[in-house]
Amino acid sequence: MKTWTRHVALAIAVTCGIAIAAACTNKAEQQAATQGGTTALGASEDLKALMAARGLSEADVEAALKTYTPTGKKDEYLIFASGGHSGQVLVIGVPSMRQLKTIAVFTPEPWQGYGYGDESNKILAGAMQGTHALSWGDVHHPALSETGGDYDGQFLFVNDKANGRIAVIDLADFMTKQIVVDPLVGSNHGGAFVTPNTDYVIEGSQYPTPLGRDYAPLSDYQAKYRGLVMFWKFDRKKGRIVPEQSWGIELPPYSQDLSDAGKLVSDGWAFLNSFNTEMATGGTLQGKPAIESGASQNDMDYLHIIDWKKGEQLVAAGKATTMKGLRVLPLQVAADEGVLTFVGEPKSPHGCDVTPDGTAIVVAGKLDTHTTVYDFAKIKDLIANKKFESKDAFGVPVLAFKDAIRGQVEVGLGPLHTQYDDKGNAYTSLFLESKVAKWSVKDLKLLEKISVHYNIGHILAAEGDTVSPDGKYVVAMNKMSIDRFTGVGPLYPQNFQLIDISGDKMRMLYDLPIGDGEPHYAQMIRADKLHPVKMYTPAGFNPYTGGRDPNATEGGKERITRNGDQVDVYMTAVRSHFTPDQIEVNEGDTVNLHITSIEQAEDQTHGFTIDMYNVNLSLEPGKSENVTFKADMPGVYPFYCTEFCSALHLEMTGYLLVKPKGK
Amino acid sequence: MKTWTRHVALAIAVTCGIAIAAACTNKAEQQAATQGGTTALGASEDLKALMAARGLSEADVEAALKTYTPTGKKDEYLIFASGGHSGQVLVIGVPSMRQLKTIAVFTPEPWQGYGYGDESNKILAGAMQGTHALSWGDVHHPALSETGGDYDGQFLFVNDKANGRIAVIDLADFMTKQIVVDPLVGSNHGGAFVTPNTDYVIEGSQYPTPLGRDYAPLSDYQAKYRGLVMFWKFDRKKGRIVPEQSWGIELPPYSQDLSDAGKLVSDGWAFLNSFNTEMATGGTLQGKPAIESGASQNDMDYLHIIDWKKGEQLVAAGKATTMKGLRVLPLQVAADEGVLTFVGEPKSPHGCDVTPDGTAIVVAGKLDTHTTVYDFAKIKDLIANKKFESKDAFGVPVLAFKDAIRGQVEVGLGPLHTQYDDKGNAYTSLFLESKVAKWSVKDLKLLEKISVHYNIGHILAAEGDTVSPDGKYVVAMNKMSIDRFTGVGPLYPQNFQLIDISGDKMRMLYDLPIGDGEPHYAQMIRADKLHPVKMYTPAGFNPYTGGRDPNATEGGKERITRNGDQVDVYMTAVRSHFTPDQIEVNEGDTVNLHITSIEQAEDQTHGFTIDMYNVNLSLEPGKSENVTFKADMPGVYPFYCTEFCSALHLEMTGYLLVKPKGK
Repeated sequence: MKTWTRHVALAIAVTCGIAIAAACTNKAEQQAATQGGTTALGASEDLKALMAARGLSEADVEAALKTYTPTGKKDEYLIFASGGHSGQVLVIGVPSMRQLKTIAVFTPEPWQGYGYGDESNKILAGAMQGTHALSWGDVHHPALSETGGDYDGQFLFVNDKANGRIAVIDLADFMTKQIVVDPLVGSNHGGAFVTPNTDYVIEGSQYPTPLGRDYAPLSDYQAKYRGLVMFWKFDRKKGRIVPEQSWGIELPPYSQDLSDAGKLVSDGWAFLNSFNTEMATGGTLQGKPAIESGASQNDMDYLHIIDWKKGEQLVAAGKATTMKGLRVLPLQVAADEGVLTFVGEPKSPHGCDVTPDGTAIVVAGKLDTHTTVYDFAKIKDLIANKKFESKDAFGVPVLAFKDAIRGQVEVGLGPLHTQYDDKGNAYTSLFLESKVAKWSVKDLKLLEKISVHYNIGHILAAEGDTVSPDGKYVVAMNKMSIDRFTGVGPLYPQNFQLIDISGDKMRMLYDLPIGDGEPHYAQMIRADKLHPVKMYTPAGFNPYTGGRDPNATEGGKERITRNGDQVDVYMTAVRSHFTPDQIEVNEGDTVNLHITSIEQAEDQTHGFTIDMYNVNLSLEPGKSENVTFKADMPGVYPFYCTEFCSALHLEMTGYLLVKPKGK
Repeated sequence: MKTWTRHVALAIAVTCGIAIAAACTNKAEQQAATQGGTTALGASEDLKALMAARGLSEADVEAALKTYTPTGKKDEYLIFASGGHSGQVLVIGVPSMRQLKTIAVFTPEPWQGYGYGDESNKILAGAMQGTHALSWGDVHHPALSETGGDYDGQFLFVNDKANGRIAVIDLADFMTKQIVVDPLVGSNHGGAFVTPNTDYVIEGSQYPTPLGRDYAPLSDYQAKYRGLVMFWKFDRKKGRIVPEQSWGIELPPYSQDLSDAGKLVSDGWAFLNSFNTEMATGGTLQGKPAIESGASQNDMDYLHIIDWKKGEQLVAAGKATTMKGLRVLPLQVAADEGVLTFVGEPKSPHGCDVTPDGTAIVVAGKLDTHTTVYDFAKIKDLIANKKFESKDAFGVPVLAFKDAIRGQVEVGLGPLHTQYDDKGNAYTSLFLESKVAKWSVKDLKLLEKISVHYNIGHILAAEGDTVSPDGKYVVAMNKMSIDRFTGVGPLYPQNFQLIDISGDKMRMLYDLPIGDGEPHYAQMIRADKLHPVKMYTPAGFNPYTGGRDPNATEGGKERITRNGDQVDVYMTAVRSHFTPDQIEVNEGDTVNLHITSIEQAEDQTHGFTIDMYNVNLSLEPGKSENVTFKADMPGVYPFYCTEFCSALHLEMTGYLLVKPKGK
């Protein structure tokens, strides 16, 4: 710190002329410095008091200056973080570490009107998995769309672990456009991850079930339970996943975990790790060992090595069977044709991260103290030459661990995930040790560790999982915050810690509490790669359908039409009134409300609600929304603008009058 | 800034020994300073480059040091902000301006498991207003519980403008415990506000409807539409509002707006302002003027002066009529008995804020450039002596404006709300001018203005609406952020700006984007007044019912019982397994799941989900939850812990097996 402090002292001195002298030891110069102001001594006392009052060390001062972002100054990076079982995605600016937006994905969110209008309801209703309406999701792994292995800032994909779903978010307007269901798996986890040009979005299952979730007793676990990895085809032009063009591979009933796509030399391949190859199913009530111990018996689990290009060819050649509308390559075919190969990986692995150059795969075992670096070239040769050590119980060929690895690095207790910088270094999260370990991929040498607070899960770095990481920043995604923040009850916020990795030593910069979800993975993209629209132009655009709304209404063409008991209201919203502002219908009518914001001014959003009818929409400039409801409650119901849009916002109101039957 | 900068230069120099010399101009000393490090010149270049790269001015450096809060250091204040139509409440630390938590109130929230378990579902289901299930709310005004006019940190009350509801949040665990419905109003706005000892929570309606929302054509507006102010009785011991002990006052069909309770000398009184005393109802489709213009015709609207202690006596004396189970004092009685009195207030007022000493009420008219300061003593005398200028169309006595005011202050364009500091100053938000105006309540003199970004709505200050404001901080709650933050699509975040008011001049410190709701009002309380629990002890506590859960399960006593097609599962959760971890039921069974977290470690939260069944709970340490569902989907469904609780969190799983009929 001393060196740095000297910099500050001088630099601030330099930046303010006369002040220079004030920092000098020479008594005479100090007196000179008092001209036109507080005496230097008095001055120093003031600031020392301030620093003492705020408890700031010199390191804190540096951290403050490296993160503080003045009004109007933009952030350099955006983090897209899963919101865990909030079901949403969080957008966070770096280095300011300010939450800029929550994107509603699997959970209805009224501020955005998501799940309260006809089209957004369709997205959610179309994503059910049975008779129980799903009103949430468990978001784990966001994946930004890539071109040539680099983020291109166009789309974001996230998985719902709990209900086996993948969502597509368009970064043109930061809105969810599609939720795709996987009808075969009981849960997913290894996803969303994309291939280097976003041809496919990869989804790996987690807890095995009979594919399709049909009933089978646990005694049939090995015979009938299975895993699955799906390759969801993405149509970039349409901005949608195309299930008919997607396909999967049947896997043994191990708990497949995180996955990553090969890149550059390893493009065309995918890697999934797994745990519970013991196939433990618990039985705690019967006094049997819990899965946590049953699944921790073997020294090795299996890294799944998948030649997806070959799989794609086999599926095209008709080797897949169709299950619930999805093409699935049978396990036996995948094993026999060299699409699926295993290699041992130490005790209960979690992270699986391909290096930027694509030549290695780094895996960390939760119960191992090492990261294991697999060498793709060696793996490829072994497979090409069919040099297998054995086969697993399902006939999948297994490579010899020692022949497939480049080496191991002892990093510490509970290693989970690894990210990369621009200098050939890797950063691995240590859950049990509450540290981040920095190590050299080239030399396989541990370089440094830094403490985090506390129990770090995933870790992310600036473009740290692409072919060209930026370095600069790492974020520790800590699961526990315990004593870090002011108490807010028994449910504690998570803690994102921003770490400066631009220098030789890692430096802790900032603690960000996350008090509205439990993020798992996140990605950090350069902000200048994103080009979001500021409004919808021309007015009348429906962001859910992605085109002009057939019911879009222009100013002056507002109207109310009736066809039997169907009432269509074509409405516009503009500062500070709705047209119409009086809607009278009969009890029992079905009301189809079509609202267009004809605003074309940035940040000039309106909202629309009808009291007691649970109608609630967000009307960004130029947006069209539709909402249908049954007017089954007679009486008088105000409607009004829910976004404070102008000085006369409170006057932006009107009435729905529902005439009782027989009146 | 120069003076301040000199302080930094010296202070940092002083705090770091040798560095002092480095800041000197004397060449010889500069060389001396180079010993053991970069040359001073090189050093200064380094930092100048950093400051340039980050675009930091000297003012920014000061702001950074006044807000940056190092890891482990706590915030001095907590802000409780309404989340607008997100339906939730946001908790923010000051001065760090970090969002610490979102409290789920009117909208189901899966991370907290709120709206996914039997008891939280009961809170939401009990708060319906008809046949349409309400899955959101429009939160406007949080009110912290008070003792003697000061925040006591025990409870928080918020209103739902859209659906006429009031929620009670217990600050022991930051959870919503009760939602009370007002079956009479079409919407509310003047609430929640509390009387000085929280005897009552005040709720004023906004858009008039026939009380009870019965049908009446708009032609009957003056005859049949009405406003209402409710005084909800709060039982502090029970921590619940008691509707049977609550009562209201019928009001004319003006749009009653913000309200505030008298304090100290004005305790026993309440003040509501109003707009649209023109009773405009629009008719835009028919070419009639919109309400925004119809409601802006009169020079004066009416400040409602309510003697609620007298009202309470009259209700106790049986002068109220009962409507939908609530006691309501008729307008005529209130007018005749001196419970309700009016005084003119300039054009379309919005804010209504009693001064800390209780002697004055400050009202701002949106279309007026002044704040008007009403003198409570004068008002009280005028009423006592029945010195009325006139009566309104409904027979309510009206005081002479000039006789009731202490004076006016020209503050600027679009004044809305006012808060107070500890030095006798007031701070008024100026929506149209995008400024905060600081003025002296004693001298009625404008002192200073500061620009905000942009279009400020409400304003808040540290304990700024109590009998003893703290000064120190003001927060501008800006409705628009336009160019302040990195773009995140057409729906922009709001912008909270922290302003330092500790010195003679206001100083802008920090911009906080709010990207998950549209806050209206907020309150800032000293953090040391809050004493939240860290866990539920002993284990088995149900936070929704506020006692031990009758189905709480102890370790070792887990079991599954069956009674016909009713299956009860008594489950425990502890790192890292559930007992039982295998649940087999028959298709068609009703499953009553009772889960207790037997953890007693801080921040050791588990979650519980059953895939595809939309079952999702948050299990803080010691918490018991119950969830009931119909096992109507045969097959195999994993359940698992949704909070990353340990290194073997992923192994904390099990299976629900639903045996198909006839198998």
